[in-house]
Amino acid sequence: MLDCMVNGELSQVVEASDRGLNYGDGLFETIAVEQGRPRYWADHMQRLASGCQRLALPMPHQAVLLREATTVSHGQSRCIVKICLTRGPGARGYRPSASTAVNRIVSAHAWPEGIEALWKTGVAARICRMRLALQPALGGIKHLNRLEQVLASMEWDDPAIHEGILLDTEGYVISAVSANIFLVSSGTLLTPRMDRCGVRGILRGRILKAFANRCELRRVTPDMFAEADEVFLASTVRGILPVCRIDTQTFPPGPVTRSLQEWLAQDWSNQ
Amino acid sequence: MLDCMVNGELSQVVEASDRGLNYGDGLFETIAVEQGRPRYWADHMQRLASGCQRLALPMPHQAVLLREATTVSHGQSRCIVKICLTRGPGARGYRPSASTAVNRIVSAHAWPEGIEALWKTGVAARICRMRLALQPALGGIKHLNRLEQVLASMEWDDPAIHEGILLDTEGYVISAVSANIFLVSSGTLLTPRMDRCGVRGILRGRILKAFANRCELRRVTPDMFAEADEVFLASTVRGILPVCRIDTQTFPPGPVTRSLQEWLAQDWSNQ
Repeated sequence: MLDCMVNGELSQVVEASDRGLNYGDGLFETIAVEQGRPRYWADHMQRLASGCQRLALPMPHQAVLLREATTVSHGQSRCIVKICLTRGPGARGYRPSASTAVNRIVSAHAWPEGIEALWKTGVAARICRMRLALQPALGGIKHLNRLEQVLASMEWDDPAIHEGILLDTEGYVISAVSANIFLVSSGTLLTPRMDRCGVRGILRGRILKAFANRCELRRVTPDMFAEADEVFLASTVRGILPVCRIDTQTFPPGPVTRSLQEWLAQDWSNQ
Repeated sequence: MLDCMVNGELSQVVEASDRGLNYGDGLFETIAVEQGRPRYWADHMQRLASGCQRLALPMPHQAVLLREATTVSHGQSRCIVKICLTRGPGARGYRPSASTAVNRIVSAHAWPEGIEALWKTGVAARICRMRLALQPALGGIKHLNRLEQVLASMEWDDPAIHEGILLDTEGYVISAVSANIFLVSSGTLLTPRMDRCGVRGILRGRILKAFANRCELRRVTPDMFAEADEVFLASTVRGILPVCRIDTQTFPPGPVTRSLQEWLAQDWSNQ
């Protein structure tokens, strides 16, 4: 972690009574910041506001969050800013006090290395044993209850495998551990619904909007990989990553993924 | 919060990079301490160790935890000690680093008021709209991903209602928001399995052991309340609480609940 601000003050610590720590009672956003400009800021703020509404958390002023994001990323040519909102400190017990506060924890982190190389080669993935539970009340939002993703990411240590594919407990494909997933099938972009689990990724949302007439939200089964022409992952930080292998199935990076990568380079430069 | 120790040092703060805060990557125990003696210490340590094994966390030495629990509760005639274990601070990303640490956050909290009165009168409960997701990988352990319980506890604000009853997404009864549940039916104690969600409570375990020949672990449906002779909640902190009402159904505190309360008073005094 580089710099960190807690409620507007430079600090690397939070209270032990914070409900984020005790119950995962909060939300987060992970934002790429280049030359001081947060990528897709409006989209991140929209998702955060939507998460706040779902959890009945007061949404802080966007201008305050932007100022803090700018402060912690100051001097970095590029970095990742993480915004974590929690329901603040509280007494023991699940029920929040009537006067709900919100704690803002805004931190800067080193830019991940080696992403550009993966845009070309693609990534190898495996299907995880960990299944995502179906919880419509939390589906789609980026909340702090992430043990499923933690345990899934611990299933392998082969550095040649970059990502895990997560199915839900009914066996439907949902996403990678930390990216959304798209299948390209006869030119159509298929991506799973996020209504029962998973996170509505920011880049996923950009793609759905920009290519609305070619996208289809649906339940995706693992056997659809065999019939897919291309598979790629979408992450606001890592961009569009071709999937070159899932367990024993291989996929050559294809033209649709390549054209989306070109679109993304343009979309980023317009930010 | 009264006193708090973080990794053996008196402190009220944890690092903002703690994985407990960022992902709910950890476990907790809530322990009643009277005259310096933690109630059911061995049972709590057993559950904590089991949770550590499930999450691949190193279990701290019990003697260390006991020393810290004793330190933070020093001078209190009775209090609640909360032990929170997390996978420590870490870089951004779900996957823990290879050298996993464990952070110990041991804090003392005020004894809850008014419990004894509820032993007599019983508690009124409601069935929550929030349903518990089915996640066998986390079922039974007391992990830090508790948004379901937080949101369930926010569903009502009528102070006359003391607890919410949680069903799972398939409609089976699992527990109260912060206690286990038992139905008494023709002298048999029925309590839900905790294999897919819910927490294996310490007092629940004591009851199952002490009354093994009268207990039955099973899937419980809400319509079984109508046929139950008695219903009670079990919590290591709050003891055995008769349920006098669930929504519109009423239950007079009955003889089995009363005899279990007597057994519990004895069991506590033997601790």
